Amino acid sequence: MGTLVLLRHGESVWNAEGLFTGWVDVDLSAKGEEEARRGGELLLGADLRPDIVHTSVLKRAIRTANVALDEAGLHWLPVKRSWRLNERHYGALQGKNKAQTREEYGEEQFMTWRRSYDTPPPEIADDAEYSQFGDRRYADLPPELMPRTECLADVVARMLPYWYDSIVPDLALGRTVLVAAHGNSMRALVKHLDGIDDQTIAGLNIPTGIPLVYELNDDFTPRKTGGEYLDPEAAKEAIEAVKNQGRK
Amino acid sequence: MGTLVLLRHGESVWNAEGLFTGWVDVDLSAKGEEEARRGGELLLGADLRPDIVHTSVLKRAIRTANVALDEAGLHWLPVKRSWRLNERHYGALQGKNKAQTREEYGEEQFMTWRRSYDTPPPEIADDAEYSQFGDRRYADLPPELMPRTECLADVVARMLPYWYDSIVPDLALGRTVLVAAHGNSMRALVKHLDGIDDQTIAGLNIPTGIPLVYELNDDFTPRKTGGEYLDPEAAKEAIEAVKNQGRK
Repeated sequence: MGTLVLLRHGESVWNAEGLFTGWVDVDLSAKGEEEARRGGELLLGADLRPDIVHTSVLKRAIRTANVALDEAGLHWLPVKRSWRLNERHYGALQGKNKAQTREEYGEEQFMTWRRSYDTPPPEIADDAEYSQFGDRRYADLPPELMPRTECLADVVARMLPYWYDSIVPDLALGRTVLVAAHGNSMRALVKHLDGIDDQTIAGLNIPTGIPLVYELNDDFTPRKTGGEYLDPEAAKEAIEAVKNQGRK
Repeated sequence: MGTLVLLRHGESVWNAEGLFTGWVDVDLSAKGEEEARRGGELLLGADLRPDIVHTSVLKRAIRTANVALDEAGLHWLPVKRSWRLNERHYGALQGKNKAQTREEYGEEQFMTWRRSYDTPPPEIADDAEYSQFGDRRYADLPPELMPRTECLADVVARMLPYWYDSIVPDLALGRTVLVAAHGNSMRALVKHLDGIDDQTIAGLNIPTGIPLVYELNDDFTPRKTGGEYLDPEAAKEAIEAVKNQGRK
């Protein structure tokens, strides 16, 4: 029942600089644009033509979708966007250097913030430089929905309603659905799809710019656990690279 | 009741070459991208922040919206697209040189095809190079809806259902709605809004890249006939330039 294609945005300017980004709306780097274009080529090469695209409300995911779809001649697809597909909110870490944070707080605390399922970083202050408080795109969110920090469990909780209410209905029509989003909103979705437990998800990395394809059963479970990357070799290499972020 | 902002796409590659384009999906020229960026600057300068954007399914309108909204920091806006906002289908003229067509068929025939309200150009053959027959983006259109040529009256007839069913409901919520589209789909909408008769509409030209703003009454009629361009001086000059297309 339908085909789900997940596309993690390419390198952003802050990825390149090794900063925690979260909900800060930074653009793609030149390399990230190239990755997005490669994502479009892979779609085209696999003759995989999405019928609709869903993105977060962050520029790096939106531009990844735009560039990839341009490349694939699918710029005209219908689009839906939601904050529920945003990257994990990194709280007070937003804007901080990953390597410095690791040195300052030590490996254990650093890895807990990055990968613990249910321990969020400290909250960001509303008047902090990289707070999203007052950002017009979130004006419709009642205060209790607007995060000041998130752990992956929080992302699962706020992402799943969008999966059920907006993505599943498109899949139920038998469509091929492209979701252009972020490392952690995708980990949240993959955790749900593949039934990964709260511990094991810590070790799962999703590479950028390589479409991950899930063919789905009638109950919207994957026909094949883990799905399939359109470029499995490149995916393997990229997964290793992500693991080493924040290491010298 | 709501604010309507119309933005005609910037120069396309075929505008630059003086070819009839219609539904052929050509990209913006470098100048067209610049015009789109200027459109975004004008929105920003006027502190006019759309809540939602509607585009045609043609690349030059989609990219105009993307570039202008990027410039205005509004890349995250919800988007809707419809073939009903497409440029007029130019029938068998699609891909033909405007100046050559004018020479070949004479001024009168040329102007009839360009500006008569109810005389369409000859139909395009399904197997012609620039036919949209078989284009996947129109796969959901039953054959009787898929044009092979259009006059402006045809554009009004197919555009208005989108105005009533998709744009008006957004305006009814008091929103500011951006429509990024084409010379003739906008002329069709302006004809409706301003109650322009079938003869007078022939003389109406809409400049590219300059947002045209209509504040609307409760019955979705304009508070001010003709609306207001965000850069009235530039609009005046550009309108003159459009008039002279196809002349040496």
